[in-house]
Amino acid sequence: MSARLIEPGSTLGIVGGGQLGRMIALAAADYGLKVHVFAPDADSPAFDVAGATTRAAYDDAEALARFAEAVDVVTYEFENIPRETAEILAARAPLHPSASALAVTQDRLTEKSFINGLGIPTAPFRAIDSGDDFDRALEAIGRPSVLKTRRFGYDGKGQRMIRAEGAIERSAIMAEFGGAPLILEGFVPFEREVSVVAARSADGSFAAFDLCENEHRDHILAVTRVPATGISPETAASAIAIARRIADALDYVGVLAVEMFLVREGESERVVVNEIAPRVHNSGHWTIEGALTSQFAQHVRAVCGWPLGDAARTGGMRVEMHNLIGDEAEGWREILARPGAHLHLYGKGEFRPGRKMGHVTRLIP
Amino acid sequence: MSARLIEPGSTLGIVGGGQLGRMIALAAADYGLKVHVFAPDADSPAFDVAGATTRAAYDDAEALARFAEAVDVVTYEFENIPRETAEILAARAPLHPSASALAVTQDRLTEKSFINGLGIPTAPFRAIDSGDDFDRALEAIGRPSVLKTRRFGYDGKGQRMIRAEGAIERSAIMAEFGGAPLILEGFVPFEREVSVVAARSADGSFAAFDLCENEHRDHILAVTRVPATGISPETAASAIAIARRIADALDYVGVLAVEMFLVREGESERVVVNEIAPRVHNSGHWTIEGALTSQFAQHVRAVCGWPLGDAARTGGMRVEMHNLIGDEAEGWREILARPGAHLHLYGKGEFRPGRKMGHVTRLIP
Repeated sequence: MSARLIEPGSTLGIVGGGQLGRMIALAAADYGLKVHVFAPDADSPAFDVAGATTRAAYDDAEALARFAEAVDVVTYEFENIPRETAEILAARAPLHPSASALAVTQDRLTEKSFINGLGIPTAPFRAIDSGDDFDRALEAIGRPSVLKTRRFGYDGKGQRMIRAEGAIERSAIMAEFGGAPLILEGFVPFEREVSVVAARSADGSFAAFDLCENEHRDHILAVTRVPATGISPETAASAIAIARRIADALDYVGVLAVEMFLVREGESERVVVNEIAPRVHNSGHWTIEGALTSQFAQHVRAVCGWPLGDAARTGGMRVEMHNLIGDEAEGWREILARPGAHLHLYGKGEFRPGRKMGHVTRLIP
Repeated sequence: MSARLIEPGSTLGIVGGGQLGRMIALAAADYGLKVHVFAPDADSPAFDVAGATTRAAYDDAEALARFAEAVDVVTYEFENIPRETAEILAARAPLHPSASALAVTQDRLTEKSFINGLGIPTAPFRAIDSGDDFDRALEAIGRPSVLKTRRFGYDGKGQRMIRAEGAIERSAIMAEFGGAPLILEGFVPFEREVSVVAARSADGSFAAFDLCENEHRDHILAVTRVPATGISPETAASAIAIARRIADALDYVGVLAVEMFLVREGESERVVVNEIAPRVHNSGHWTIEGALTSQFAQHVRAVCGWPLGDAARTGGMRVEMHNLIGDEAEGWREILARPGAHLHLYGKGEFRPGRKMGHVTRLIP
């Protein structure tokens, strides 16, 4: 694709209709862009805030082509886009992040190999395609370890802990995954989980938000605190430097998140990369009020080829973001009454368990 | 209308499709509400961010009725809604602010009489319906004074200064207004212009943002600074108390703005009310980043019957908002590159002179 000049009034295409797409759309609107959302579900939250919508399956080549031709630039809200879909889009409109960044990050094996190839530590890992692989991987990695599908996992879905003790029912375990390609990862004895949310532009400029400290419950992000606590400035800086090396190596355009474990060994602390999300990320939702540029606005700037914004925290304040999972969102009215609580709801109809319904951000002077 | 419980997932109807409607729609989306915008122009900026739209004239009774029946609550972005329109809506859905608040504020004569009736000072004024009225009004009010249409004025449109010196061509002047009902207002020798932007709920609760200081150019708001400078805390408090008396007297529900002149006489300073805007207001745009609850979010809370939010300034910082008028918006890319500048563009296609294209807000620690 030849470079097009994207300006206010142009149309941003967003693939995916969930809350991330919705919040990208809201940020785009704030810059005077038009938005066209492509998603398969009629009740996609992002449809409600877009001037144009296409409801079609992610493998509907004709609908994808029409969509890409109707917009000036395309982005997406999730990494599990089929390769063919990305190629159809990229042939017709600038696609950011690129299909190759997508390909690297949507398979845990490719992703970890890529990261290690940059000299950046991850958990040890082995691919598993057969029962024999399973035994060899377990031998090499040891226990405890974590068995995961290589593709399409999120929020703890598609993974299973292999405990340090007890018998291992190899065939029962493998049957759970229904023959999907797997990866066995060594368990990292982490002290806390952190993430770097950052943006990179086509011209190589880079802007990271402050290091986020993340607390998960039932494998789902529950709380993000910024800046991360109990971590030295040097380690925080090295985490951000790692994210930049990854973004540079992917020739990345847009916002990405790099999830990391903080590991403490005696006096020393270091970070180990867990995974890359080639998109805006739940641990960056605090930036809507907590930073001078939100991750959504920053993503729009990057994919449009505009200057990146200031990623500093608003007034230098600390920030806390709490997800509202499932029926936690029923407390919306009480949350609205809390002084200084910024409530966001995603317009999802049903309070299903484990479903991200909204979030609440608070700035702490 | 019986009271309905408005909750996230309900539909907010917005009459008017300009930037104010657009920003109300964005705030509503952030609370998980659905939005339906009613406006006559195909290229209404608010259409781009609404899940449902009705394009019809403001006097299309059938379209208005269908719209009101399709939503759970109705608000509007401007006060020049015909009375019949308000009545059609209010008969079918809760309408906030009410048709009676609208009726008081959409005629300068009714409005000033109402304000004076509360014992709150305005400029002296006289109604003009004939040439004889004109002479009598000029005799009573003196010169300099300002001749205005009683209805449908905004941004200096529909008004004309009568200077202190020189001959007065009565019939030429009156011909300019084409027979519209007029009002002559004494010129107030003000030191600065200020406004109170505040919200009132159906239960009588009230929350005012800090006093805004406004600078106009060519009768159009150019800059708002908060908090207002060069004004004593007592006078600022009395300005807010005036806004509350007005809101209470109107049994007002929603955000309103009260524009005032600051007048200094020797050692004493006082405020004189210029006009009431029964809606969100340009001088409140700074609240998007500058306050813990934006005026748009606050308006949504009030019209939905939800608790009002905290109106304090973000981190106690000072705030400055600059409008982008006409081709000033062409500088968008340079503005995006300014550290800490929050750019908002309204998605209007054409940079017409005098047209509000967007605004820029900056928080000053």
